[in-house]
Amino acid sequence: MAISKTVSIAKIAKQANVSIATVSRIINKSGRVKPETVQKVMQAISDFGLTPKDFHILENDSSRNAILVCFPDFRNPFYADIIDGIQKAAASRGFRTFYYEASDYKNALNEYEIIMEQNNFAGLLLAHNIPDEEKLSRLRLKYPVVMCSEHCNAPEISFVSIDDIYSSQIAINYLLSTGRTRIALINSMLTNAYARFREKGFLEALSKAGLIPNNDWIIHISNIDFDITVSVISALLKEQDRPDAFYCVSDVCGAAAIKAIQNSNLRVPEDIAVIGFDNIDLAKMVVPSLTTISQPKMQMGHQSCELLLNLIENPSSPTQHILLNTELIVRDST
Amino acid sequence: MAISKTVSIAKIAKQANVSIATVSRIINKSGRVKPETVQKVMQAISDFGLTPKDFHILENDSSRNAILVCFPDFRNPFYADIIDGIQKAAASRGFRTFYYEASDYKNALNEYEIIMEQNNFAGLLLAHNIPDEEKLSRLRLKYPVVMCSEHCNAPEISFVSIDDIYSSQIAINYLLSTGRTRIALINSMLTNAYARFREKGFLEALSKAGLIPNNDWIIHISNIDFDITVSVISALLKEQDRPDAFYCVSDVCGAAAIKAIQNSNLRVPEDIAVIGFDNIDLAKMVVPSLTTISQPKMQMGHQSCELLLNLIENPSSPTQHILLNTELIVRDST
Repeated sequence: MAISKTVSIAKIAKQANVSIATVSRIINKSGRVKPETVQKVMQAISDFGLTPKDFHILENDSSRNAILVCFPDFRNPFYADIIDGIQKAAASRGFRTFYYEASDYKNALNEYEIIMEQNNFAGLLLAHNIPDEEKLSRLRLKYPVVMCSEHCNAPEISFVSIDDIYSSQIAINYLLSTGRTRIALINSMLTNAYARFREKGFLEALSKAGLIPNNDWIIHISNIDFDITVSVISALLKEQDRPDAFYCVSDVCGAAAIKAIQNSNLRVPEDIAVIGFDNIDLAKMVVPSLTTISQPKMQMGHQSCELLLNLIENPSSPTQHILLNTELIVRDST
Repeated sequence: MAISKTVSIAKIAKQANVSIATVSRIINKSGRVKPETVQKVMQAISDFGLTPKDFHILENDSSRNAILVCFPDFRNPFYADIIDGIQKAAASRGFRTFYYEASDYKNALNEYEIIMEQNNFAGLLLAHNIPDEEKLSRLRLKYPVVMCSEHCNAPEISFVSIDDIYSSQIAINYLLSTGRTRIALINSMLTNAYARFREKGFLEALSKAGLIPNNDWIIHISNIDFDITVSVISALLKEQDRPDAFYCVSDVCGAAAIKAIQNSNLRVPEDIAVIGFDNIDLAKMVVPSLTTISQPKMQMGHQSCELLLNLIENPSSPTQHILLNTELIVRDST
C-alpha cells in the first residue's frame, strides 16, 4: 500500500518520458502502443522495483487529479475571471483545483516545495511574481510548474501573459490622441514584472511623442488598494501643477483616481481623464465608467491551466511562452 | 512509513477524546498529564496496533496542519475580508489554508468526502449553503466541520454568522425613518438561508409599520451579479408605478441599482434611495457612495476558523452557534 503513495503512474510516465495515457494503456493492456514504447515503460516500472501488477489499484486513483493555484492576493478582483478560466479548463479534463494565497513571495517557493511533498497535487500554477528564478527552475525539475499572468526569465517555465509594453503604448497613444500631454502613471511596485514592462511602455510612448515625463507623476503604490490610491492621488492634486490624465495599471486604482478627482472638486474627464487596466466588473460600475485596457483574463487562466495539464499528462510537452492580445475599451472617463 | 500516512496524532487524540497537545506531551514524555489520561492515550495508540515509539517521526509531521475552505463563488468580493480573517486565524496557529470553489451544491458534500479521504486536510470550513443537512451531519461524524457566514439547522455543526432578520429590520426601519414607504427588495434565491432570513426581516419591518409589500417588488435574482441586477432593475423602472427605495441584499446589487437608476435618468437618493448589504470596498467606490449594512466579515472568518481549529485540536470542543452584530453605515445613497 505504501507504494501507491509514492509511485504514481505520473512518475512512471515522467521516468519513461511518455504520457500518462500511454502508461495507462500498457498497464491495462488496452489500446495500441509501439513496442519500443512498451519497453521504455516496462523499464521505468522496473526501475522503481515494481511490476505492472502493482498498478492495478492506482488506475482509479483520482487523488493525483488535483492542481494547486497560487495567487498573491484574493482581494484583487482581477483574479475572479482568471479563476473562472482555470476552473473551466481543469473541470473539462477531470481535475480539481485548489487555491492558495502566498503570504511571503520570498519564502513562497520553499513553502510550495513542502506543500507539494505533503499533498497529492499533480502540478503548480503560479500567478504571482517570483523573485528567485533559480529556485523556481529547481522546483520545476521536481514538479510540473506553469506561470499565469506574471512571468519570469527562466526559459524552461511555460507562461501565458500579455504584452505589457505594447498595452501601455496603446493606452498612452490614445490619451495623446485626445489631446492630453501631462500624463501621470499610477504603477505598482517594480518588483512585479508587469509593473516594470508597463512603465517601460509608458516612457517609450511619451518619448516617441517628444514628451519628457515628470518624475513626480510616476508613482509606485505598495499594493493595489483603493484607499491607498485615493490618498496618494488626493495629495498629488493639492499641487498647483497637476496632470491632465492618469494612466493607472489597475482598474481598482482607476476607480480610486476618479474618486480622488471628484473629491477635489474636479471633473472626469473634462478636467482630468482616467484610464485603467484589466477591465474588471468595477470598470463598468463606477460613474463615469472607466476607459481601460482589457486583459483576456478568462483565456489567460484557461490556457495556462491547459499548459499545466499537458505538462502533467505528458512531461515532455514543449515549453511555451504565450503573450495574449489586449484591447482598449473606451468608456466615459476619457 | 505507511503508518505515518494513515495514523496521525490527531487521530489518536480523537480516539482518546483528548487534545493533540496532550497526545504530544505523552509521546514526548514532556509536561504534566493526569495518569488516567496517559492510560486513555496509550489505549488509543494500541487500538491502532502501534506503540508510542511509532510516533517519533510524526511529531514534526506538519502535513496535517492544513484546512480546506469551501466558497460558493470567488467572483463575489464579499469573501475577500472573510478570507483575510481565516488566513490570520490559521497562520497564527501554524495552519495552512487551501481554498476550493464548490461548483454544484447538491453534490458538494459527496465531493468533499472524496477530497478529505484523498488529502491531508485536518478540517473543513464551509461558506455556502448546504441543501442536505443529514448528509452534513454524517460528514461531521468523520471530520471536523464548521460553517462560516451560511449556517444550517444541524445542531451539531458550529457556525459563525450574523442575525439576518434583525439586520433587515434595521435597514428597513432606517429607510422608513427617511420617509420612504415604497420599498423594493432585491434578494438572492431563497435556497440560501440568509436570503430567507433577510426577506423575513424585510416583511416583518414593513408589517410593523402597517405597510403592505408589493409582491412585484420582491425580486429573487439567480446569483449576485452586477449585469443581471442592472437589467432586472432597469426593467422594473420602466413601469409607471415605481419604488422610492431599493433594499439590496448585497452591495454588488446596490451598485447595480445605482447604475440602473442613473441610466433611467433618475437621481440617487433624491428620486430613489438605495441601501446595500455587506459593506465591501465597492460601497465606497461608487458615486454616490452606498449606504449599507456592514457585516463583520473579517471577524466572521477569523472566529469560524478558530472554532474549526479548536475542534481539530480538541474533538470534544463544544458546538457553538454564534451570531455577530451588524452595523448600519449611512452614506450618500439614502
